[in-house]
Parts: sequence; structure tokens; C-alpha cells
Amino acid sequence: MSARPSADRLARVRLSRATEPGDPRVACLVVEHGAEEAAVRLARSPRHGLVVPLADVNAEEELRRMAAREIRFVTPEDEEWPEALHDLVHAPDLNDLGGVPVGLWVRGPLRLAEAVDRAVSIVGSRSATTYGTDQAALIAAGVAEEGHAVVSGAAFGIDQAAHRGALTARGTTVAVLACGVDRIYPRAHEGLLRHLAEHALVVSETPPGGAPLRFRFLSRNRLIAAFGKGTVVVEAAVRSGALNTAGWTDGLSRELMAVPGPVTSAASQGVHQLIRSRGARLVTNAAEVLEALAPIGERLPIVPRVAARPRDRLATQLRQVLEAVPVRRGVSAERIARIARLAPEVVAESLAALHTAGLVERSDGSDGEHWRLVRAEEPDG
Amino acid sequence: MSARPSADRLARVRLSRATEPGDPRVACLVVEHGAEEAAVRLARSPRHGLVVPLADVNAEEELRRMAAREIRFVTPEDEEWPEALHDLVHAPDLNDLGGVPVGLWVRGPLRLAEAVDRAVSIVGSRSATTYGTDQAALIAAGVAEEGHAVVSGAAFGIDQAAHRGALTARGTTVAVLACGVDRIYPRAHEGLLRHLAEHALVVSETPPGGAPLRFRFLSRNRLIAAFGKGTVVVEAAVRSGALNTAGWTDGLSRELMAVPGPVTSAASQGVHQLIRSRGARLVTNAAEVLEALAPIGERLPIVPRVAARPRDRLATQLRQVLEAVPVRRGVSAERIARIARLAPEVVAESLAALHTAGLVERSDGSDGEHWRLVRAEEPDG
Repeated sequence: MSARPSADRLARVRLSRATEPGDPRVACLVVEHGAEEAAVRLARSPRHGLVVPLADVNAEEELRRMAAREIRFVTPEDEEWPEALHDLVHAPDLNDLGGVPVGLWVRGPLRLAEAVDRAVSIVGSRSATTYGTDQAALIAAGVAEEGHAVVSGAAFGIDQAAHRGALTARGTTVAVLACGVDRIYPRAHEGLLRHLAEHALVVSETPPGGAPLRFRFLSRNRLIAAFGKGTVVVEAAVRSGALNTAGWTDGLSRELMAVPGPVTSAASQGVHQLIRSRGARLVTNAAEVLEALAPIGERLPIVPRVAARPRDRLATQLRQVLEAVPVRRGVSAERIARIARLAPEVVAESLAALHTAGLVERSDGSDGEHWRLVRAEEPDG
Repeated sequence: MSARPSADRLARVRLSRATEPGDPRVACLVVEHGAEEAAVRLARSPRHGLVVPLADVNAEEELRRMAAREIRFVTPEDEEWPEALHDLVHAPDLNDLGGVPVGLWVRGPLRLAEAVDRAVSIVGSRSATTYGTDQAALIAAGVAEEGHAVVSGAAFGIDQAAHRGALTARGTTVAVLACGVDRIYPRAHEGLLRHLAEHALVVSETPPGGAPLRFRFLSRNRLIAAFGKGTVVVEAAVRSGALNTAGWTDGLSRELMAVPGPVTSAASQGVHQLIRSRGARLVTNAAEVLEALAPIGERLPIVPRVAARPRDRLATQLRQVLEAVPVRRGVSAERIARIARLAPEVVAESLAALHTAGLVERSDGSDGEHWRLVRAEEPDG
């Protein structure tokens, strides 16, 4: 890049500076005509409302200045351009936003395409509960341990917990910002953002210097959704930006996952709506997230482990006898027959079978042979 | 019934006494040959392991004795026999149990068929948390208020909370027991069971005097599932009897619903499994339960109410301008143009439109006209 930037790259820098992130008309022009021709056509259209005239952007100078600040501009001609972004060509526009970004401003030592190759996006409310941030951190750590990058937005609450969880597991994490990658927003996350810029990746479609305006969060959300093989929504009130990311995930045919919570928690209300009405897959831990994302057959479905108890396989009659055998003090076969309301021959036969199966044990009682269970098993009604 | 019981009824009393609840072979014989012929055939089969010889049951005497104790035996010839039970003919056997009961032993002043006509079954763990019992009681009260009976099993935990919730709302509730309707199990629910027997309904397939044996809980569960138009599982550990009721609900093609909880709660683990793997519908309150059970179109889907904010409908450019308008102190249109990075003409046009829409207000500043937002709106992530 320090040598001679291509005409395509320079056109994209100009477009990035002169238009807003996620402007679908710009994306459309670039897809149809290429970046250079798109810039020419936009410069001709006075009604487009460009941020600055395209001709005013000195793209070469801009790239040099940013390189000096260790900010690079990644475009489709770069190896680290993630293929996943091309899916945005076909994604429906949400909020009048959409399309493939003309380029991404990136800080950090990792290669973007490699980092997001098997990424999981984790998003949720800024006003999260401790329950939510705990779950976000646990899931992030779990997927990061398995070599999946965690993509999020560096915001308060769930985002911050997701990045933190991945870092705790010494995994990869990528922050996708609504403002420029040189800006610290929110202010309180200065440490996190600096750490990510030094050791991982900070990415934005908004050029350096750009402020975190509301509509930029909306266009940013489509990138978070596009980078992940799936998106996990951890907590979201009914009106949360995380639901916008969920919409993008759906639109991009990525796997939409949601972590339930108490129905009494407003922070889980939006998440429950996603499961109820938008077909989000309920997940309760990292293993279930990975199961959802694995190609079919690669990972076995997670079913909580409960050893099949021998009792379950017994025929009805044997079960009836077994039910009548006491836990502690042994009783006679006759007494068991009365309790089970079965014929004594049937009970004698069954007790022998149960004894062979190791489910009942025999002891000597005052009135002859006694029977009791080998171990207590508590039924749960 | 005090006059002359039919031969069918007497045969059913004998079958009820001589066989175990939910024995699918008995149910099958009754469907194929009628109760009288079924009794004849069973008496001939020495390998069936009857509880008592069929000939030993004095059915007329039994009905008289029970009538004296205000226990009636309800069979398909009675008006209060619920049609819903016939669905058990086609339900798959679970745990070697199944089929339509030969009859039901009933205590209480209500008519069974009428009571369960629009019933909702609510089940869950005996070892429930406060969260679970609170939700069970709330949902039960909510559906009971709308005229739906609450069916449950009178066990500790969720069952008890469900009955209690319905009673609190002065609604109808039906307890379906694994033991005889004259027995008090669990002991601690003596007050509840007596109240239900006096004011509502207590039902069992097990004849009076029968003990609450484990396999009787399993056959009882199919009746709970059959009585409800749907079953709500409130809390259930991975190995809970409530999951057995869920299986019956599924097998009977009734609506299976589940209330989520914290993923950290073992009591919600089974419920989350039901949603993940068995297609249970996530519900968070009584309204959502009723929505699931209403014939299509009768009830509008419940979407948490959030007023559409005017801002959502604005075109991209207007939104960009709106984002740049400060909340408290007004600023000039020129400053807004700089913040929004838009041409001054565009901003002037947009501000006029936003003013008409009532979203921004004008004030006089030292350097001319100032603009600020009419009210603060906090974006969420």
C-alpha cells in the first residue's frame, strides 16, 4: 500500500470520505460500475448530498496520513478482505441502509479475513444485567477457546463482556465501530479499545475522525451480522439496537441465536421475542452455539448428559414389582405382592429377574427372605 | 348411577380394579371388543397378571360404596366424560403405557367435561424455584381469569402453584392424581386436595385406595396432557416427570409451551431443551399462552407494545440531520451542517421538514436562529 495504490483503492477512499457508511445507492453504483466509475457518476449528481465534494478528497495523501497512524484501508483487492462481506450485495436493505462497504478502515495486527473466518458475533443491550454480561463473557470465552473469533461492537454491557470473555480465553476478538477507528467511544472503553488496536482488530466503515452518530450504529450492525457465521443475542430489551443486528443476521441468512433469561427481566424481553416470533434458536451455552454453527454432522447435538437408568428399560410388570420394593428395610415377597397388587408367582419371578439385573438385594428377615432396593432412586413427579 | 348401572359400567369398574392404569393391552381390548367382552377375554388369559381376579370384583357394591363417599366413576356413557380422552386411542404409547382409560374416579362438584372443555395444563418440577412457582401461579391466574380451567397434578412445586394461581383468580382447576382420589398425597397438600374435592375436581384413573406408585405417575401424565388444549411446562430439570407430560402433549398433537428461565438455573434446563429440541413454543405470560391456544385469527399475536417513533420513518438524509441536532443547547444550521457533514442547503431543507414534523424546535441564539431536539431520545447500541 505504501508503494502505489491502485485507481480502484483511491476511488474507494474518496467514496468512503464523501459518502455515508451503508448508503445503498453508493454500494449499488459500485457493484454495477466499479468504484472509479461510481465516483465519476456520483460527482455528476448534484442531488446526492455528498459529505464533501469527491474531488476535494486527496486519497493518496489520506492513505499516507492514515498509514502513519497505523490505520489501513482494506478493500476487495486485499487478501484480508473478508469474503463474507459480499453477502451484503444480496441482503435486503434495513433502515434504508445496506450494501457492501466501499472499504474498511482497520487498526490492529491481525489479518481481518483470517480473524473472522470462523467468527461468532455476540451482541446485546448496553443496559445489560449481571446475568447478561456473565453469559456473554462465558459464551465468548467458550467459542474463543475453540478458535472462533468473537465479533462485537465495543459498547457498554453485552458488547464489552463479549470482548472481555474472548480476551480472557486468549482468543481473537474484533470490534466493529460506528465511529472512526481512531476515536474512543464510549470514553470508558479507552483501555479496551487500545488493547484491541494493539493486539487484535478494530474495524469501521466510517472514516477516521467520524463521530458515532445514530444511523452509523445501524449501518455498523450489518457488518457485525455479516462477519459472524451466526449472531448470539444475549440480552435485549424490546427496543434495542441488538434487535437491528438480529434483523441483519436474518436477512443475511446467518444463524440467529438467542440466550433466554427470566421472563421477569425487561432485558430478556426482546430476546424472548426473537425466539418466539423470529425463529431465533435458543442457546444456553457456548457448546450449543458451536453446535448451531457446525456443518451438519461435524458436531453431535448437545443433549444434557443423563445416564439411562436400567429401570427405564424394564417391562411394565417388572416396574410394578420394583416400585413396591422398599428402599431401606427389606420386606418379604408376599408383602411386595400385596403392595404391588400382583400374584405371588409373578412377584417371585420378577424379583429374581430384578436381582439378576442388580436392582434389588436379598437379606434374611425373621420371616424368611427379605428384599430391598440396591439404591434409592427418587422419582420426580 | 344409584339406580341400575349398565353392564358396560360394571365391566369397566371390574377392569379398573383388576388392571393397572394405562395398560395399553387393556385399552386395546376395550376399543376392539367393548368393556364387557374385554373383561371376558382378560379373565381367560392367565398370563396377563391381573391385580385381582376379575370375578372377585363386586362392581355394584363398589359403586355403592364409593357413591357413599361421594366418589363417582365416570365412563364414556356419562355426559361429563371428556371427548378429549378419545384422542388417547391414537396417541403413541410412552413407557409401555397408553390408551383411553376404562373409566375415571372423580370427586368434586364440577362436571368434568365442562371443566376441561377449554383447559390449560400447567406442569413442572416438584423442586421448583420461587421464580418458577411465581410464574406458574401468574400464568394459571391469567388463564383462569379468562375462563380456562387449569389442570395439574397436585404435586409440590409447580403443580401446587398452578392450582393455587387458578384458585386465587376464582377460576376452575382440576387435580389429576396418580393415587386414588381418596388419598392425600403428598401429605402436605391435604388442605389443597380437600379444597379441590369440595369446590372443584379431583380425578384419577387409579381406583380409590391406590398408592402413588412411580409408573402411575407416568400413566397419570398422559391424562394431564390429554385434558389440556395445551400444556405449559414452567420449570423442569433435565430429568423431570414434566418432560414425560411434554412427551404426551406432543404425542397428542396438543400445543406444547415452555416458560424460559435463567440458563444458570438447573430447574430451567429441561424447559430450554424442550424449546431447543422438541419444538416447544416459548411463552412468557398468560396472554401468550392464550394466543397459542386460540383458533387462528381469534386472538391477535402479542407483540410488546412500543409506539413507533416518528424518527423511524425518516429518510436517511433527514435522519443524518436529526442526529446532528443537539439535545439541550441549540446550535446554528451551519454548525449542524458541519456535524452532519452535509451541504447547508440540504440541512436547511431538512430542518424545515423536521420542524414541521415536530421533532426539532427553533430558538434565537446570539448568532441567529438556533435548533435543538424537541425531546431527548436515547439510542440503544
